[in-house]
Amino acid sequence: MTTSRLEAFSDGVIAIIITIMVLELRAPAQPTLPALVKVAPVFITYGLSFLVAAIMWVNHHHLIHAVHSVTARLLWSNMYLLFWMSLVPFVTDFLGKNYHEPMAVALYGLDLTLCSTGFYLLRGELIRQSRSDSEMIEYHERIQRKNALSGVLYLFSVPLAYLSVHASFFIFVLIPALYFLPEKKLAG
Amino acid sequence: MTTSRLEAFSDGVIAIIITIMVLELRAPAQPTLPALVKVAPVFITYGLSFLVAAIMWVNHHHLIHAVHSVTARLLWSNMYLLFWMSLVPFVTDFLGKNYHEPMAVALYGLDLTLCSTGFYLLRGELIRQSRSDSEMIEYHERIQRKNALSGVLYLFSVPLAYLSVHASFFIFVLIPALYFLPEKKLAG
Amino acid sequence: MTTSRLEAFSDGVIAIIITIMVLELRAPAQPTLPALVKVAPVFITYGLSFLVAAIMWVNHHHLIHAVHSVTARLLWSNMYLLFWMSLVPFVTDFLGKNYHEPMAVALYGLDLTLCSTGFYLLRGELIRQSRSDSEMIEYHERIQRKNALSGVLYLFSVPLAYLSVHASFFIFVLIPALYFLPEKKLAG
Amino acid sequence: MTTSRLEAFSDGVIAIIITIMVLELRAPAQPTLPALVKVAPVFITYGLSFLVAAIMWVNHHHLIHAVHSVTARLLWSNMYLLFWMSLVPFVTDFLGKNYHEPMAVALYGLDLTLCSTGFYLLRGELIRQSRSDSEMIEYHERIQRKNALSGVLYLFSVPLAYLSVHASFFIFVLIPALYFLPEKKLAG
Repeated sequence: MTTSRLEAFSDGVIAIIITIMVLELRAPAQPTLPALVKVAPVFITYGLSFLVAAIMWVNHHHLIHAVHSVTARLLWSNMYLLFWMSLVPFVTDFLGKNYHEPMAVALYGLDLTLCSTGFYLLRGELIRQSRSDSEMIEYHERIQRKNALSGVLYLFSVPLAYLSVHASFFIFVLIPALYFLPEKKLAG
Repeated sequence: MTTSRLEAFSDGVIAIIITIMVLELRAPAQPTLPALVKVAPVFITYGLSFLVAAIMWVNHHHLIHAVHSVTARLLWSNMYLLFWMSLVPFVTDFLGKNYHEPMAVALYGLDLTLCSTGFYLLRGELIRQSRSDSEMIEYHERIQRKNALSGVLYLFSVPLAYLSVHASFFIFVLIPALYFLPEKKLAG
Repeated sequence: MTTSRLEAFSDGVIAIIITIMVLELRAPAQPTLPALVKVAPVFITYGLSFLVAAIMWVNHHHLIHAVHSVTARLLWSNMYLLFWMSLVPFVTDFLGKNYHEPMAVALYGLDLTLCSTGFYLLRGELIRQSRSDSEMIEYHERIQRKNALSGVLYLFSVPLAYLSVHASFFIFVLIPALYFLPEKKLAG
Repeated sequence: MTTSRLEAFSDGVIAIIITIMVLELRAPAQPTLPALVKVAPVFITYGLSFLVAAIMWVNHHHLIHAVHSVTARLLWSNMYLLFWMSLVPFVTDFLGKNYHEPMAVALYGLDLTLCSTGFYLLRGELIRQSRSDSEMIEYHERIQRKNALSGVLYLFSVPLAYLSVHASFFIFVLIPALYFLPEKKLAG
C-alpha cells in the first residue's frame, strides 16, 4: 500500500466527518431570534469542532507525508485514529445540545483524548521508522511531546468537567490556540 | 503541502456540501400536488444553492490553480472559506422553509457574504504571492474587484431583507448571473 | 481545467449520491417480519436507483475520458447533469414510500429523463469537439442515439404512470437492462 | 477504465459508508448515564461495523492492486460488492437498536454473507485474469479459501441467530479477529 492511497482514504473520511457535522445543525422551525439563539450553542460547538478537525487534518497530512512505508501497525493506528475522529460529530452534537452538562463536556474531552492517542501511536510508528536519522527522530519527538501535552490536557478536561464545565471549555479553546501558532511556522 | 492535496481536500468538502443539501429535501408524506407544491420553495432554494456552490467550486479551482506555495495564511484562509461554505446547507434549509421571512433571507445573505470574504482573503494571498508579476497582479486584482462587488451586494442583501425579501432574492439571483457570463470566457 | 479534475469532482458527487440514498432506508422500529416487509419497496427502489446510478457513473467515466478540452459549455452541462443526478435520492425516497402512486412514479421518470438530457448535452459537446474525426463522430452519434432512446422512454414513463404504474416500472427496469448488455462489450 | 479510477471511486464509496454510519448514533436527549447506556449497543455495533468495513477496505485495496485489466465482469462484481457494503449502515443501525432480536442479528449476518460473495466474485475474476501465472493463482486461491471460510461462517450465523444471538455475535467478532492476524503479515 502506498502512502498516497492511505492519505486519500483518510482525507476522504476527514472531509466527510468535517462536513456531516453540519447536518446536526437543524434549522429552527420558527424564524424568530429566540429560536435562532437556541441554536447558537450548537453552532459554536460546530465551529470549535470544525477548527479541531481542520487542525487534525493539517497534522495528519504532515504526519503521513513523513511516512516511509505503510506497515500494518501504521495502517491500523490510522484506522484507530479515524474511528475516534468519526465520533467527533456525535460528541459535538451531544455537547451542543447539553453544553452546561458535565457528562456531555466530559465525553467531548474523552473523544479528543482518544484522538490524541491515535496521533501518538502514529507518531510513535514514525519515530520507529526513522531509526537511523537522529535529526528526524528529534523533530518527531518534539512534535510527539507537544501532542502528548495536548492529550494530557484533554484527558484532564474529563474529570474537570464535573467541577467546572467552563474550565474544560477553556482547555478545548486553549489547545487549538496552542497548535495554531507553531503550525503557522511549520506550514509557512 | 502541495496545492493538489489542498485542492483534493477542498473538492471533497465542496462535493459533500453540494450533495448533502439534497438530504434537506424531504419527500412529502402524501403523493398529492399540494404536498409537492409545499416542497417547491425548498427545491428552488436548493437549486439556487447548487448553482452558487457550483460557481464557488469553479472559482475555487481557478484560484488554487494559480497558487505558488501553500502558506499557512493560504491554508487557513481556505479553511475559513470552507467553514462558511459548510453552512450553506444550513442556511439553504432555513431559507427554503421560511422564504418569506426576513431573518431567513438575511441569514442566507450573511453566509454568502462571509463566503465572499473567504474568497477575498484567498485572492489577497495570491496577489501577495505574485509580487513580481505585474500582469498577474492586474489579473488577480480584476477578479478581486468583481469578488468585492458581489460581496458588497450580498452584504447589502442582509438589511435589505427587512425592507423587502424580494429585493434580496433579486440580489441572490443577480450575482450568479453576473458571475456566470465572464466565467464562460475564463473557462473557454 | 483538466478533465481529471472534473472527473474527480463528478466521481465524488456521484459516490456521495449513490451512498446517501441508503440513509433513506430507515431501519424498522420493530424487528418483525411485517415491519421489514414494509421497508421492502424502499429497498427495491434503492436497488434500482443504485443500478441506475452505477450505470450513469460508468457512462460518465467513458464520456469524460473522450473529452478533448474542458470548455465552459462542457463544464456547465456536467453541472446540469450532476444537479438532476443529485435529485435521484429524493425521487427514490418518494417512490419507495409511494410506489403505487402515479405522481411518485412520474416524478421518478421525470428526474431520469432530465438526467438523460444532461448526458445528451455532454455527448453533443463531445461531437462538437471531435469535428475533424469522422470515426469518432460516428461512435459518439451511435451512443447518442441510444441515449436519446432511453431519454424518450423515460419521458414516456411520466404520463404512462397515470395509466399504469406497472408499465412505467417496466420501463425503469428495461432501460438498465438495455444499457447493461452493450456496456459489457464496451468495458470488456 | 483504469484500476486507479475504479479504486478511487470505490474508496470514495467506502469512505462515505464508514462515515455515515456515525449518523445513526443519535446523541441521547438527556445527558444522563442511563440515556447514554441505552446508546451503548448502537455504539458497540458501530465499532464492530467500522472494523469490518476497515478490513474490507484493506482487502479491497490489495485486491484491486492485483487487477490486470478492468473487465465488465470485474466492474460489475465490484458494483455488486459496493451495493451490499452500502447496506452495512442500514443493518448496523437495525442491529444496534435490536441486538437481542434474532431477525436483526440474522439480517446483519446475511448482509455480510453477501459482501463475502462480492469478494468471492472479484477474487474469482482475478484468478481468471492470472491464467498463466501459477504462483499468482496459488496466492489468490489461498485468499479465496480464507474468504470462502468467512463467507460460510457468516452464512451460518443467519439461521444460528434464531437459536442463539450470542453464538452469531461470536461469529461476527471471530471473523475480524481471524482476518486481522494474517492481514498484519500481508501489509507489513
